[in-house]
Amino acid sequence: MKAFGQKTWLIPDTFLHSVSRSEEDKSHEAICVLNTGTRDAIIKLTLFFEDREPCRDFSARCGAMRTHHIRMDRLRTVDGRGIPVDTPYAVLVESDVPIVVQYSRLDTSAAEMALMTTIAFGVD
Amino acid sequence: MKAFGQKTWLIPDTFLHSVSRSEEDKSHEAICVLNTGTRDAIIKLTLFFEDREPCRDFSARCGAMRTHHIRMDRLRTVDGRGIPVDTPYAVLVESDVPIVVQYSRLDTSAAEMALMTTIAFGVD
Amino acid sequence: MKAFGQKTWLIPDTFLHSVSRSEEDKSHEAICVLNTGTRDAIIKLTLFFEDREPCRDFSARCGAMRTHHIRMDRLRTVDGRGIPVDTPYAVLVESDVPIVVQYSRLDTSAAEMALMTTIAFGVD
Amino acid sequence: MKAFGQKTWLIPDTFLHSVSRSEEDKSHEAICVLNTGTRDAIIKLTLFFEDREPCRDFSARCGAMRTHHIRMDRLRTVDGRGIPVDTPYAVLVESDVPIVVQYSRLDTSAAEMALMTTIAFGVD
Repeated sequence: MKAFGQKTWLIPDTFLHSVSRSEEDKSHEAICVLNTGTRDAIIKLTLFFEDREPCRDFSARCGAMRTHHIRMDRLRTVDGRGIPVDTPYAVLVESDVPIVVQYSRLDTSAAEMALMTTIAFGVD
Repeated sequence: MKAFGQKTWLIPDTFLHSVSRSEEDKSHEAICVLNTGTRDAIIKLTLFFEDREPCRDFSARCGAMRTHHIRMDRLRTVDGRGIPVDTPYAVLVESDVPIVVQYSRLDTSAAEMALMTTIAFGVD
Repeated sequence: MKAFGQKTWLIPDTFLHSVSRSEEDKSHEAICVLNTGTRDAIIKLTLFFEDREPCRDFSARCGAMRTHHIRMDRLRTVDGRGIPVDTPYAVLVESDVPIVVQYSRLDTSAAEMALMTTIAFGVD
Repeated sequence: MKAFGQKTWLIPDTFLHSVSRSEEDKSHEAICVLNTGTRDAIIKLTLFFEDREPCRDFSARCGAMRTHHIRMDRLRTVDGRGIPVDTPYAVLVESDVPIVVQYSRLDTSAAEMALMTTIAFGVD
């Protein structure tokens, strides 16, 4: 199948709330990747902050003809660090093959939950 | 009227929650199609997963100068199967005529409800 | 100021819930228009349905260098009809000058409220 | 790093609710900017209204290789005025270097909260 999409995607508004209603309904963000092509995607994630240098220590993969809903709260660097919580950040997603990227956030810091989503900004 | 839009659309973040507050307020997703042209649209839906081969068994139609809010929870294959619940997936929408596609999700798994929407990613 | 945007915009997922928590917090949709140019915008709205012919009886205006958050629940035809409630529909927005269009929905049919928004699909 | 994005962005639907559940969970909007380039971004914000002239008194900055989640409820003009509350408005974002812009709103006017987001409309 054709590899639809683009190789570079940007998400200016990412934020992981440290408070959740419960362990089952955890506040989380997902960078959702769709790879319709026949080659696996190797994905570099660069995190940008308001007051410090970018962090290039996170990466992910998405198999050929697969989706990967990358849960940012579960993502770890090779030395075991997670992403910072309660910190405004932004993400640059770079893949070696074309992909499509959508960003979604579920917030359960209140008793009920709130959802938001958008297709990321893609660059050729 | 002119057939506005594109023939190929991608939605990386789809997910059907199995829990709903009530039968009237069922958690659901809709792939909303607008066909402004004068020919009916025949629509192939390919579902992508995180850990198995894509599924090409779902399809839909949208009449000429009509909209179709395709309720994913009601969609069935010819042999009566529905889409998997509580499973991260992604959708490739392919139409034989230009259409515009927007994806929306209503989640009522908590007592109250949450909504999210985005125009899908369109390809010429 | 330059007239940014496009003249044709499409919104596949529109829906006006008949139930609201209260008169002050009414469930509503808004087609939000931004006209940065120096000429007023005359805006035709065509409503598409799942099971009947399109309706071309609604229109709106947006002044030069103004925004207009068109409340769909308050919009009336020249003979006083409103848009149908609890009915899936879609909207084609056509302006005589370039504009930018964003669609938002507030649902207060449950005790709490849910919000969703997206930039509409623009066509040159 | 390359300066991804565009210099002009438009957001037709902005609105700052005056009611919040609490000071910690304040209803707010954020215009989230990502500047991946090596030069700081100087950002002009022009506010458009439904019934008065545009306001050009707000501005912001985003450092090189930084993000800035511009909290509209905290933004002030040089003479200390904030943006009007409970007023439909729209925003034109103009930067001197390429950026990517996403708009998000958190509403806590009800007991629980609602979220919405979209990538803004970018112009080359």
